[in-house]
Amino acid sequence: MNLPSFADVRDAAARIAPHAWVTPVLRSDRIDDLVGTRVVFKCENLQRGGAFKFRGATNAVWSLSGEEAACGVVTHSSGNHGNALAMAARTRGIPAHVVIPEGAVKTKVDAIVAAGATVHRCAPTTSAREALASALQASTGATLVHPYADAGVMAGQGTLVPELFRQAPGLDTVLFPIGGGGLASGCSIAAHGIDPAIALFGAEPEGADDAARSLEADERVGPFVADTICDGLRTLIGEPNFHALRDHGVVALRVSDSECIEAMKLLWTELRLVVEVSSATVLAAMLRYPARFAGRRVGVVLTGGNVDLDALPWCPSPLRSR
Amino acid sequence: MNLPSFADVRDAAARIAPHAWVTPVLRSDRIDDLVGTRVVFKCENLQRGGAFKFRGATNAVWSLSGEEAACGVVTHSSGNHGNALAMAARTRGIPAHVVIPEGAVKTKVDAIVAAGATVHRCAPTTSAREALASALQASTGATLVHPYADAGVMAGQGTLVPELFRQAPGLDTVLFPIGGGGLASGCSIAAHGIDPAIALFGAEPEGADDAARSLEADERVGPFVADTICDGLRTLIGEPNFHALRDHGVVALRVSDSECIEAMKLLWTELRLVVEVSSATVLAAMLRYPARFAGRRVGVVLTGGNVDLDALPWCPSPLRSR
Repeated sequence: MNLPSFADVRDAAARIAPHAWVTPVLRSDRIDDLVGTRVVFKCENLQRGGAFKFRGATNAVWSLSGEEAACGVVTHSSGNHGNALAMAARTRGIPAHVVIPEGAVKTKVDAIVAAGATVHRCAPTTSAREALASALQASTGATLVHPYADAGVMAGQGTLVPELFRQAPGLDTVLFPIGGGGLASGCSIAAHGIDPAIALFGAEPEGADDAARSLEADERVGPFVADTICDGLRTLIGEPNFHALRDHGVVALRVSDSECIEAMKLLWTELRLVVEVSSATVLAAMLRYPARFAGRRVGVVLTGGNVDLDALPWCPSPLRSR
Repeated sequence: MNLPSFADVRDAAARIAPHAWVTPVLRSDRIDDLVGTRVVFKCENLQRGGAFKFRGATNAVWSLSGEEAACGVVTHSSGNHGNALAMAARTRGIPAHVVIPEGAVKTKVDAIVAAGATVHRCAPTTSAREALASALQASTGATLVHPYADAGVMAGQGTLVPELFRQAPGLDTVLFPIGGGGLASGCSIAAHGIDPAIALFGAEPEGADDAARSLEADERVGPFVADTICDGLRTLIGEPNFHALRDHGVVALRVSDSECIEAMKLLWTELRLVVEVSSATVLAAMLRYPARFAGRRVGVVLTGGNVDLDALPWCPSPLRSR
């Protein structure tokens, strides 16, 4: 099983330190009141590139040999990983190819182009994304950096946990969104490498609850069509990622799109941070399942802040399409 | 002249340390490219209560004698100072009375009520605000904490400068918005107390350019009616504040409302921060007057992030009124 160890997370932290940023941890009295316990937010929307994914991408890029690096990297991504990989590739001066499905948030696509990558569009299914990425691997010799099922990527994402624990001592619980599971896996391995008693929770949209169903079935469920406004969480949980979540006892909590939109507004208002609707799943989960978190000291990952301000969920726009 | 000394700023920093937060300093490659120089942002939108004003209010509240404190505090405010004073009063367990003009941002009024203050509404003119505040002083015995012409408030606001200089060594320029001038004065005194060679710039809306006109005339201009979307910057520059700006060689730069709205979107997008339109004046100024900042290492104050998400300047709403 292709999973990183805790030592890999430690190594990743050293490897990415010259490039990634140590993000702030913030809190809000009002949010504490609303969720009924003490919570701190690890602000990866303030990470370089606006999402935690820069960590994993940078670890992957800087782990390549000189020979591998010369051919560049390739990936398929709904946006944030593609952007992160493009930016990471540029820190090393190597080429980046990014496969992006139709329907991806425009600001994310624009950012990837601005970061210097070559963009390739495909149909919005997992199979179409993977097929085009494989073809590019073959034609360019580039190394595939999978958005979430790559051990180096998972290790990179996990580096935020040691930072979080140093910045906010005394946490007993960590909560993160679950999409493909790169963050969830990396954070789980890192958290239990530091303190095996940490409770782990993941938040998923009801319309993309593959991790929840997989954990309930004790096996990874098959392909599905996501139906959620949370554009960053539409992918099927990865195979190694599912195993990591199961082995670390992660509890997956479902939230509705409307709960995510309300939570998004709450985060923007109370923390004064721009966070994506996918990132608001975590607060939606704390509000919907308060008994799960009562009496706990919770560290929550705010995953990203790449939002199209002209397409806000609560702002009526005749030109806006879902 | 009722101005604080640099020593007063130092004392204020110690006095507010148990209550105020050390805010992050953030930057953005893209913003550096757009403004043509290196700039860092002191994120006071992430201060307790969502604006830098908590610093000055806390210094004022905790400077009171026990006898004075028992009668509480009173002020008149467009929002952020009233909220800050209400919150600061609550840290000391004393009453707070806040006079708020009609037209103040609803979220700011709600926050003041939530912070436990007694709210009193008045007409949106400087004279109406001051008259009602005086009446409340007389009837309650509360101490008036002026939003910007109070030496203790100015000293409190200035505390962000030593933090900024420690967090971002090597700055040679500081830029802030100018409303009543509490922040501008405090920052000027603090900056020159540390390094007399620091260049100081203030950003003002064209429709509330009293500081610019006062500095041009070398005397404080008379009352005026503000005409700007920048609700936090409509007040006339205070008398002592004007003198501080003049004595410290502050250069005032005018920006239009539309430039502020564009700059606001840029800050939300590139820094992933919710900042008020009044707070975006500073980036608007750097974009409009690049020659002023070319070759300089600039520290910019982002003053606040208390925004009504249902009344965004770029979001069409039939219910929204200016």
